[in-house]
Amino acid sequence: MPTTTELRVRYSETDKMGVVYYANYLVWCEVSRTESIRQQGDSYREWEEQGFALAVSDARIRYHRSARYDDLVRIDTYLTEVQSRSVTYEYRMTLAASGELLVTAATSLIAIAPNGRPIRLPAAIRERLNAMREAPPAR
Amino acid sequence: MPTTTELRVRYSETDKMGVVYYANYLVWCEVSRTESIRQQGDSYREWEEQGFALAVSDARIRYHRSARYDDLVRIDTYLTEVQSRSVTYEYRMTLAASGELLVTAATSLIAIAPNGRPIRLPAAIRERLNAMREAPPAR
Amino acid sequence: MPTTTELRVRYSETDKMGVVYYANYLVWCEVSRTESIRQQGDSYREWEEQGFALAVSDARIRYHRSARYDDLVRIDTYLTEVQSRSVTYEYRMTLAASGELLVTAATSLIAIAPNGRPIRLPAAIRERLNAMREAPPAR
Amino acid sequence: MPTTTELRVRYSETDKMGVVYYANYLVWCEVSRTESIRQQGDSYREWEEQGFALAVSDARIRYHRSARYDDLVRIDTYLTEVQSRSVTYEYRMTLAASGELLVTAATSLIAIAPNGRPIRLPAAIRERLNAMREAPPAR
Repeated sequence: MPTTTELRVRYSETDKMGVVYYANYLVWCEVSRTESIRQQGDSYREWEEQGFALAVSDARIRYHRSARYDDLVRIDTYLTEVQSRSVTYEYRMTLAASGELLVTAATSLIAIAPNGRPIRLPAAIRERLNAMREAPPAR
Repeated sequence: MPTTTELRVRYSETDKMGVVYYANYLVWCEVSRTESIRQQGDSYREWEEQGFALAVSDARIRYHRSARYDDLVRIDTYLTEVQSRSVTYEYRMTLAASGELLVTAATSLIAIAPNGRPIRLPAAIRERLNAMREAPPAR
Repeated sequence: MPTTTELRVRYSETDKMGVVYYANYLVWCEVSRTESIRQQGDSYREWEEQGFALAVSDARIRYHRSARYDDLVRIDTYLTEVQSRSVTYEYRMTLAASGELLVTAATSLIAIAPNGRPIRLPAAIRERLNAMREAPPAR
Repeated sequence: MPTTTELRVRYSETDKMGVVYYANYLVWCEVSRTESIRQQGDSYREWEEQGFALAVSDARIRYHRSARYDDLVRIDTYLTEVQSRSVTYEYRMTLAASGELLVTAATSLIAIAPNGRPIRLPAAIRERLNAMREAPPAR
């Protein structure tokens, strides 16, 4: 089962086309990653405080339909890969009210130290991430 | 020859990791599209005022190195495909001072009317876009 | 009694100083206005769809302490003035966990038509807003 | 003479009202501060690298007219006060093409150390800032 986050579209997130500006879906991906980790009883903030961070190395987004101001958006978050030095998340964003598909996305992230150098996932965190792993969403 | 835009990293574009937040590179892609069209003597703003818009349908970004506050970033922008209903841009972002590679990205955009419906590229605009077409950057 | 909204600080809202970038508190003011109106059973989105909007004419913020990534922030929102053409909101933002004061702010907003022209508050909306009016927060 | 910065309004900076979202003017204040310091031959980035930062303690903005996508905006920046622990900047933003007034703003900033503690302005930086001081803009 993926973890699920809901958020309300902010006025600041819209643009003059009247819909959500396209870069903001990447912000929501990150919000859903943080919430996904929290829902499993962990804390990405604490991981960073312990000297471990995840930096995005690759992102892909497909835009199917536009979200609008004040829409309630549902984000299903799938941690689909955990490797020795990287993880991959997939996302499926829908309108909470109707279930209509907004966006599908995927991001790969690499483990880094506070100085920005790539590192191996610490064993304890890798174990925790493995426990969160999901099959990817059906196409 | 691609068109080239330079911009200076803003404090607001950084995050607590000390580097540019990953969604902001998509903002820069859009800035470079606007500037690329202006450099060819056209105006995306006027296209929109005439009832023609381009909406991103797909975006892909690879993050190689992080930009930092006050860095001068160079964006080479390549319009690599012009089809009857869509166009594709590719981007190569480097540090202006050193030439180090920051990001490569590609976005596909579809032509839409003010009501959001997909349309064919108007003939005059398609001709102008064709004149801007480039070979993609070497890998 | 003011209305109260809570939100979680996003990674994108931080800057290289490690704290929330100062302009984002104005985004949160707007989020809290939308939520305040919703909590009273109205909808700012619907007001705009009916041709009535509120545009900020003046903003003032005092920064007391910085919010950080993943902090839960509480925003108490006070609609303190309702006039024929404008309204004033005041805000008090605190850390939800400790009650420590982050920011106090005030914004004045004027009623405008879809073309941007200042108008009088429609009678029905003015009545609704009057019902939401509060004494300002104690200093 | 104030220092002057020009910037082009980005699509991402607009909102569904078709104009620049109100919080973004604070971003532009910061851009103009950075550029103002650079124009005097100094570098705010280097000041931060040396362990000295300026954090905004108070901001005030009056919104006169809205900037729109692709407008060229001129920002006149006035460093109007330099005290032992704080400085004040005032801003006057106009449309570069017509000179129409968009926004006036003022921000006070306090000197802080890397740990966030308020400090006195280092003597060398205070001297540099004093050399940049201006009379405030005429009302």
